Amino acid sequence: MIETQDIPGFFADRTTLDLSRYVMLRYRFETDADPKFAAASLCSEQSTAQWHRPGSTEDLRPQFAAKVVALNAKSGVVDVTIAHPWENFGAKLPNLIAAVAGEGAFYAPMVKAIKLMDIEFPDAYLKQFEGPQFGIKGSRDIFKIEGRPFFIGVVKPNLGLPPEQFAELAYESWVGGLDIAKDDEMLGDMTWSPLADRARAAGLARRRAEKETGTPKCYLACISDEVYDLPSLYKTAVENGANAVMINPICTGISAARQLRRISEVPVMGHFAGVAVSGRVSNFGVASVVWTKLMRLAGCDWIGIAGFGPRMQCSDEEVMANVRACWEPMGNIAQALPIPGGSDTAETLPMVAQKVGSPDFGFISGRGVFGHEQGPRAGATSLHQAWKNVAPI
Amino acid sequence: MIETQDIPGFFADRTTLDLSRYVMLRYRFETDADPKFAAASLCSEQSTAQWHRPGSTEDLRPQFAAKVVALNAKSGVVDVTIAHPWENFGAKLPNLIAAVAGEGAFYAPMVKAIKLMDIEFPDAYLKQFEGPQFGIKGSRDIFKIEGRPFFIGVVKPNLGLPPEQFAELAYESWVGGLDIAKDDEMLGDMTWSPLADRARAAGLARRRAEKETGTPKCYLACISDEVYDLPSLYKTAVENGANAVMINPICTGISAARQLRRISEVPVMGHFAGVAVSGRVSNFGVASVVWTKLMRLAGCDWIGIAGFGPRMQCSDEEVMANVRACWEPMGNIAQALPIPGGSDTAETLPMVAQKVGSPDFGFISGRGVFGHEQGPRAGATSLHQAWKNVAPI
Repeated sequence: MIETQDIPGFFADRTTLDLSRYVMLRYRFETDADPKFAAASLCSEQSTAQWHRPGSTEDLRPQFAAKVVALNAKSGVVDVTIAHPWENFGAKLPNLIAAVAGEGAFYAPMVKAIKLMDIEFPDAYLKQFEGPQFGIKGSRDIFKIEGRPFFIGVVKPNLGLPPEQFAELAYESWVGGLDIAKDDEMLGDMTWSPLADRARAAGLARRRAEKETGTPKCYLACISDEVYDLPSLYKTAVENGANAVMINPICTGISAARQLRRISEVPVMGHFAGVAVSGRVSNFGVASVVWTKLMRLAGCDWIGIAGFGPRMQCSDEEVMANVRACWEPMGNIAQALPIPGGSDTAETLPMVAQKVGSPDFGFISGRGVFGHEQGPRAGATSLHQAWKNVAPI
Repeated sequence: MIETQDIPGFFADRTTLDLSRYVMLRYRFETDADPKFAAASLCSEQSTAQWHRPGSTEDLRPQFAAKVVALNAKSGVVDVTIAHPWENFGAKLPNLIAAVAGEGAFYAPMVKAIKLMDIEFPDAYLKQFEGPQFGIKGSRDIFKIEGRPFFIGVVKPNLGLPPEQFAELAYESWVGGLDIAKDDEMLGDMTWSPLADRARAAGLARRRAEKETGTPKCYLACISDEVYDLPSLYKTAVENGANAVMINPICTGISAARQLRRISEVPVMGHFAGVAVSGRVSNFGVASVVWTKLMRLAGCDWIGIAGFGPRMQCSDEEVMANVRACWEPMGNIAQALPIPGGSDTAETLPMVAQKVGSPDFGFISGRGVFGHEQGPRAGATSLHQAWKNVAPI
């Protein structure tokens, strides 16, 4: 617990800082106390909670303290920008998360409801990360997709389908025009659908579809699992016929996405499963855009985000903030392909395309392709037909 | 989106189920719709969102659907118990999390605010996990601590201290009577305090203190980091002098705790950093007790939880639910040592001991030991003095 005289040690003038040393954090919090006192408390708890040894006059704050560089308070709601020295946690995602969303930030005296709204990194920090290996451009090259969104389908029924049936549905969708047939985020290496068997069957079906259509196709395998099994599951998936892999980084830990990035020779997708748990509440938690940025930093080429429409309970503004988080300049880090999803079908494609305002996204449909009453081939074709009706974007 | 006639397929009579096949989930959610309809929607989205192929009459629900086994609704607030077949995700923590707190559970039509309140596992599921290697009893044996709580201190200043200064403070605290001197959860392998150097210095200080006091002492090193670096950091820490290791499982992914459990020859601690982000809000997210249970399942011997008192913004009831989650019978899974923490000092020890009602916990103090005005030796001794004043529990 800090005292009033400690407050200035947790404030700084942005122009006097070496900004290459700081990650910028934007929090919104509620307080009954003096906003500056509460903001200093937030800085102290997330960095130098005790900045000298008893009996010593040292002050570790100039080097190690998080510092308020902007503050705007109104009616007990405080918007604050904090410069946190990244030397405190290094270029390590779990340590970054512990600093910005851990015990310090979420148990600071005087700070009631709090949400980490956004995060920004200096180039000197970014260059310690690999980022997406293929990104948007590389993925377009691999799958020869030009001037339109990637058409992606989640094979359904999502649970319980044996590998051969799975592969047959994927085949139908590819022949109908789908680019990427993917596993549901709940799939993995299951007793009733072992990854090796599913990847082998889907890989054979993929090559058959590629031959018939003359077009590259993608089987995106969900290999989300215990982190120590990811390297061998990656190998199993790709050697058997997957040519892209997916995990759920919030569930495995985002670090697992970086682990996968460092071994993968195919595009890696990160799915948003788990993001809502901390991101949905307006005045508490960690905003979805923070998770999207961390997935991109970890090296996800494709990033699944909660999409438009009532089911996903996301404002258009939040969806677009996540889309932009995939696209915006980020030092040496390549762009990621945003895949806004949530019960989309051919009918919603024009709306989604218009809102995104660019073809640089993945259009994903589950039941809209694989629940199509005339089957997945017709479901996939319906996406291309719908695309023809979209005004040039 | 399910239809009214689909509802019965997502309900079951508990007595007709083979309960060894199901994980039990207790959710509380808010809805404007018919509670049974909304509960069925919640089951569908988290399991068989589409349970047959187009044109097929198959029904995958009997085997794969999550099923409501109890429901209690009042004024739009629904308490529901769902039996989810664990065959859908296997004995894999990331896959379990994706099923119970992923896209399905948190984007189900008709379900507004939702919180996963609790989770229970059948013995058949538990026996696929290792659980704590030492637990409470094994840890008492190693460190010869009997009839009282473990006395733990977090070395402070938490950030910026060079290894030699760190070790000297730890030494003082051990000689003063501390059992375990630990790294702050924000520490790790840092440029300004490399893990190898810190563990070497702290290890030497530990052996010196053990010799002088004739008592085993513990240096608990925080090795939280990217998951692919954990095995080598574990080795670095233990070979240099740490005799217990800690990570922040919410930040690394809980799977990383299981990874560590499988290689560790010393006790493993999981810290609660990150739990508040999803656990604090009363009607949304994932209750802290779920994370505590998953850390125990992953094999954490010691589990840091948010403790008593105003700073931690946790009700006594929630703290005790987490304490019990460490202690309660859980098939083959050993008990974990709960460590309720949050700005505790010798002054709060009697209160904490009385509330916990057993010596089977870790009493942790940061600034109360290392910020003690007479130094950490006096700070550590103050805990033993305070313990003498505790009525037998």
